Amino acid sequence: MSITTRRDCEQADSHDPLGTLRDRFLLPDGVVYLLGNSLGPLTESAAARVERAVRGEWGEGLLRSWHEGWWDLPSSLGARLARLIGAGPDEVLVTDSTSVDLYKVILAAAMLRPGRRAFVTVADNFPTDLYMLDEAAAIHGDYEVRRAANIESLVDTIDEDVAVVELTHVDYRTARVAPMAEITKLAHDCGALVIWDLSHSIGAVPVDLGECEADFAVGCTYKYLNGGPGSPAFVFAASRLHSELLQPIPGWHGHARPFAFEPFYDPAPGIRRFASGSPPILSLAALAGSLDVWDLVDLGALFEKSRSLSELLIVRLEPLFSAGQIELASPRDVSQRGSHVALRHRDAEALVASLASRGVLADFREPDFIRLGIAPLYLRHVDIWDAAEALADVVTAGPNPQSA
Amino acid sequence: MSITTRRDCEQADSHDPLGTLRDRFLLPDGVVYLLGNSLGPLTESAAARVERAVRGEWGEGLLRSWHEGWWDLPSSLGARLARLIGAGPDEVLVTDSTSVDLYKVILAAAMLRPGRRAFVTVADNFPTDLYMLDEAAAIHGDYEVRRAANIESLVDTIDEDVAVVELTHVDYRTARVAPMAEITKLAHDCGALVIWDLSHSIGAVPVDLGECEADFAVGCTYKYLNGGPGSPAFVFAASRLHSELLQPIPGWHGHARPFAFEPFYDPAPGIRRFASGSPPILSLAALAGSLDVWDLVDLGALFEKSRSLSELLIVRLEPLFSAGQIELASPRDVSQRGSHVALRHRDAEALVASLASRGVLADFREPDFIRLGIAPLYLRHVDIWDAAEALADVVTAGPNPQSA
Repeated sequence: MSITTRRDCEQADSHDPLGTLRDRFLLPDGVVYLLGNSLGPLTESAAARVERAVRGEWGEGLLRSWHEGWWDLPSSLGARLARLIGAGPDEVLVTDSTSVDLYKVILAAAMLRPGRRAFVTVADNFPTDLYMLDEAAAIHGDYEVRRAANIESLVDTIDEDVAVVELTHVDYRTARVAPMAEITKLAHDCGALVIWDLSHSIGAVPVDLGECEADFAVGCTYKYLNGGPGSPAFVFAASRLHSELLQPIPGWHGHARPFAFEPFYDPAPGIRRFASGSPPILSLAALAGSLDVWDLVDLGALFEKSRSLSELLIVRLEPLFSAGQIELASPRDVSQRGSHVALRHRDAEALVASLASRGVLADFREPDFIRLGIAPLYLRHVDIWDAAEALADVVTAGPNPQSA
Repeated sequence: MSITTRRDCEQADSHDPLGTLRDRFLLPDGVVYLLGNSLGPLTESAAARVERAVRGEWGEGLLRSWHEGWWDLPSSLGARLARLIGAGPDEVLVTDSTSVDLYKVILAAAMLRPGRRAFVTVADNFPTDLYMLDEAAAIHGDYEVRRAANIESLVDTIDEDVAVVELTHVDYRTARVAPMAEITKLAHDCGALVIWDLSHSIGAVPVDLGECEADFAVGCTYKYLNGGPGSPAFVFAASRLHSELLQPIPGWHGHARPFAFEPFYDPAPGIRRFASGSPPILSLAALAGSLDVWDLVDLGALFEKSRSLSELLIVRLEPLFSAGQIELASPRDVSQRGSHVALRHRDAEALVASLASRGVLADFREPDFIRLGIAPLYLRHVDIWDAAEALADVVTAGPNPQSA
């Protein structure tokens, strides 16, 4: 269906198979929320689940709640996430932050490739990914970190000395999607292991770790998954690697017999060995509540809607691109683009402030990026239409100095 | 005041300067909660603070809440905790779990003592502490971990080759208090750095890290601090070490200029450099609410009440000890005992179940320990009196097979 009027948007929304899910979100009135790629909004089910965890499980259940669900939350939430990334239910654990999980999987992967002394990534990876590779290399003493100039030049940096290739699947600025299957094969052909950072992928674009034979992955749950501010991250390790896997931060939650309090570490079977200390239960409870919505989602419909919304946004902005008034920083080809749209403009920060004053919430990233997050669970075509109108207005009028 | 009757307990409670604080806790009726050393109970202020964080800050404030308090929570909570352990407000950060923080400080300390190749601890330290030392040693490749048989034999294991001494201040089973000042001086005299695990100390016994010139500390906030299940841990580093400190898991939250998204790590000034990824805000909010109660607490009165309650418990149980019906596993000298009382009995697990059926909640630890947590913020002398009565009954009657 071609959309050329706001009425067309209303028509499209009225036939949206995901349309009723918007009612589950507690979005403020009068706001077009294009920040779901930074912080997903609150659902009623997440709020209710946290309240139950606080006043019921903690307040009334007290310590026994550890044995009535809390202990298993990292595993049970991992199993619920798994289908979103093409993983098996026993291959995913929710634990710690993406930063800590990156550190764990980088060293876990390196331990599986003793003798190889190089890590590979790209120079414009997310900063934490770069810091973790550098630090993991430094802690071992004699690893080299190779930063390829871009995805295309990876082929020149991966050789038989490479232990680990670590990449982000969807670029946090441009939304460019890296070819996961192709790069994974390239690395495997040289005997290297691959780690995918799925922070901007999960719940936004199709991911099939199993089909790609990916080795490891990590990612956020507070963006498209709406798990709440700083909700713990997930870690994936392919089950074929589990029996030989070790990770560098072994705590009693990842021990084979945690309540025996044994003086030497013996890893729990499977992905559970990635657990370290006590997880923040109230934040896990919010994620559990948000997944009650995700459990209802047809992923095919979700990804189709993501594409429909982001195409609509770009088509509506094309006159601005043609006139040179603002630049599209994301790939024009929808198959190479994640679920946000990035623009570049000299006055990006001021434009974002002007948009906010019109109820369109987007974000600014240094030096001149505007990011518009397209979360298909709660955004409608009319929202995208209105956001495009507002953007055209502020770009044409110039940034509002009061808002800047 | 000598307490010899339940009426004396009521008298003592009526004069308790901390007595009104009990009303701030949402304890279930008819329960004597002696598990505060495992999971502190819910306060109304923690419940209300979480609700505000969920429906207000997340639901309404959305992304801007990061700039209106969330970003600073790890530091602001650390500053509020500081007085409980004799630290400066700029020396404590709330971040990650105790396990992850242990890993960070062990390696941070080791990096400050290059050339030295040994870690020292005691063989009966908490398991995670032992696992982390072993793993930190293994990741470096050629560190030796020396496990002293006990605190007394530490003196024979600390020499000029020791980089780090890591110990738990209050033993998780026996509540025995290690002599912090003395051991810290012993280590410093050999040029080693000291890490104290304060998980069973903070909010329970006097700690003065500054006075002892301790180097590093970590600890839980979900025990005596009542921060909620799995609430994030704290890390302390003496300010004199900050300028040269590095930690092994550098994330963007600990970067000097986090929103510049720079490709190389540059640590934030001070204790903030111990931050890694996004912290679980809802769990931090619960801790913030629980600290609203702690901010009201006179620490002198708190520690005096802890001693009064634990002495009462032991005095009431003395006939059982004399008759050999159950064994006191904690030090009899109150100055060497933390804020729980440990007992040993062949049928410990069954006795704990029998106590629970009478509303007295205590816990069992392998192989034969009963732990009775004495949290002076909400426990009264009458609670301790009643718990002692119940314990005498079940020990004399033998464990109830139905409850076991």
